[in-house]
Amino acid sequence: MAQLSLSRRLRRTPFSDGVEAAGVKAYTVYNHMLLPTVFHSLEEDYHHLKSAVQIWDVASERQVELRGPDAGRLMQLLTPRDLRSMLPGQCYYVPVVDETGGMLNDPVAVKLAEDRWWISIADSDLLYWIKGLAYGYRLDVLVDEPDVSPLAVQGPKAEDLMAEVFGDRIRNIRFFRYDHLQFEGRDLVVARSGYSKQGGFEIYLEGGDLGIPLWNALFEAGKELDVRAGCPNLIERIEGGLLSYGNDMTDDNTPHECGLGKFCNTQMAIGCIGRDALLRVAKEGPVKQIRPLSIDGPAVPPCDRYWSLLAKDKIVGRISSAAWSPDFNMNVAIGMVRMTHWDPGTELVVDSPDGPRRAIVLEEFWS
Amino acid sequence: MAQLSLSRRLRRTPFSDGVEAAGVKAYTVYNHMLLPTVFHSLEEDYHHLKSAVQIWDVASERQVELRGPDAGRLMQLLTPRDLRSMLPGQCYYVPVVDETGGMLNDPVAVKLAEDRWWISIADSDLLYWIKGLAYGYRLDVLVDEPDVSPLAVQGPKAEDLMAEVFGDRIRNIRFFRYDHLQFEGRDLVVARSGYSKQGGFEIYLEGGDLGIPLWNALFEAGKELDVRAGCPNLIERIEGGLLSYGNDMTDDNTPHECGLGKFCNTQMAIGCIGRDALLRVAKEGPVKQIRPLSIDGPAVPPCDRYWSLLAKDKIVGRISSAAWSPDFNMNVAIGMVRMTHWDPGTELVVDSPDGPRRAIVLEEFWS
Repeated sequence: MAQLSLSRRLRRTPFSDGVEAAGVKAYTVYNHMLLPTVFHSLEEDYHHLKSAVQIWDVASERQVELRGPDAGRLMQLLTPRDLRSMLPGQCYYVPVVDETGGMLNDPVAVKLAEDRWWISIADSDLLYWIKGLAYGYRLDVLVDEPDVSPLAVQGPKAEDLMAEVFGDRIRNIRFFRYDHLQFEGRDLVVARSGYSKQGGFEIYLEGGDLGIPLWNALFEAGKELDVRAGCPNLIERIEGGLLSYGNDMTDDNTPHECGLGKFCNTQMAIGCIGRDALLRVAKEGPVKQIRPLSIDGPAVPPCDRYWSLLAKDKIVGRISSAAWSPDFNMNVAIGMVRMTHWDPGTELVVDSPDGPRRAIVLEEFWS
Repeated sequence: MAQLSLSRRLRRTPFSDGVEAAGVKAYTVYNHMLLPTVFHSLEEDYHHLKSAVQIWDVASERQVELRGPDAGRLMQLLTPRDLRSMLPGQCYYVPVVDETGGMLNDPVAVKLAEDRWWISIADSDLLYWIKGLAYGYRLDVLVDEPDVSPLAVQGPKAEDLMAEVFGDRIRNIRFFRYDHLQFEGRDLVVARSGYSKQGGFEIYLEGGDLGIPLWNALFEAGKELDVRAGCPNLIERIEGGLLSYGNDMTDDNTPHECGLGKFCNTQMAIGCIGRDALLRVAKEGPVKQIRPLSIDGPAVPPCDRYWSLLAKDKIVGRISSAAWSPDFNMNVAIGMVRMTHWDPGTELVVDSPDGPRRAIVLEEFWS
């Protein structure tokens, strides 16, 4: 860890006062905003997430709003996923690519109406790409960042906690669907989604003034459920194979390299900017791809840069995320591996900061 | 200060090993990259910057490269500054605006040739805006982020140090001009520029492999000049009126509000996307504008959010950057103030974290 100098440029969120009062221990910076990373410790937070319920300040998942007659057309320009059958009330995970098929972000699209969308973004200024396209194409659409801040409720007891605050109607929301629910007289979009495999919801808070009232209401209602402040957990997300844009993939990578081919209907995604490039990739397949890997030995140090993967002293890939998993009793990792060495069971050497260690390509993520 | 969790997503630079060896105490995150903020202490670093020479890892000033027949046209699309008379060898500070005249970044444009430019950016993914425009307009131009990492040499002894490494030819480079100089057989663009008022240079290192050799060569040559590792200094930049994108201005602000009207030749900047909106602003003038302010009392705490400026309990502006200045023996600050209260000498009340204090609008920045 290092020290972080705070400034206005690293934006606080509508929940920051609550996060601080809950004893946040560390942050990262995400979309020019503070994103908590640790409350008790990475491992304590991990065990608690998997057994109880946590409230996460993920306001740094900023929204890009598209509004106007051309909103749907613009949305399809962005992604190789076929959006024609998507309905209001649905959320889609949508790889966003440039004209070469390189990934610019991997957001969740929330369709509010035929002519109104939110795009809940990973860490890059996708707003700028979309504004540039909309202007260049002279589309009839407004593109901006609204005052919308997601608050996630994650963990096996998330549904019970949410029902306390929003009523039992919350139980009927299906995965990657949303409903409109009331809080203090305000209409909030609430989706069953979130950056963990423990189940839960994301509340799209429109209007930062309700941030602390909402935060407090959830903590008040969750006392008997052992609710705590939490955040996306490095260990749990690696176990679950949840990729992180900027860590595990960049604009150098196609969705297919990231194992996101299942979210690409490239043939049918007519209008998608990267379609031509990705049709080629879909046909030939990628030559390297994301894989789960285990790393031998005791807990690895923090993975703050790529660690090379070697086979007979030749680089055949790199690890981009790694952590010690208490539940699986091994170091779990995400890496990009060349096709010559990506078969499950392949033994590689990872050039870790404390020396070479054995790494094994696995068949599947852990959970 | 807070703790920062490191990850691959917060990119290291070609100079990071040197920065760590020099004892960096804190970072910020800038363009998804680590930017040092403190070595000894804010005040010690400040005194040293003003009296000697420092080497700054400003690799986080990422470059956007435009290359191709339409590069010049695209460059003029971006900014209300008239670029017609700009020659290769020159650097221009260029406000970049969207179609409403809102600032998206305030970079330095480096003209390498008629068909090749670098744009040295502040903290936002300007690459995405430019790529979106280039694609939407179907321009014949390549847009990408090259492997170029600026290293700044700043302070009154910067010229002497640079002459030790690059020869006396460096002395002939005028302000905001650059020359091509050799280092270990590699051609480097070296400009007289930098984010301080103490004078100095920025070396645009092409090829990260030379990062540590260049870093070491500068420290070796500077021993007798008391060279140290440093970084943009909060106190010094406020004294000098150097604005920070994301702190003092955002996409809500026009260049005119930021006091950057002198860099706008809106009438002549034909093609500039924000031209229509800014012609209106240029005619009517902004209704609020950046001002230097002093704040009474002892050293203010870190300004990590806007502090409201009040006149008779009515909000008339906000402070966005503030620090105690040892040389001027007062708190120096940058704020945005409404025209009703922006005249020099106007007394306001700033709602600081430790209570209300008197703030005075000043005529000029301190240096």
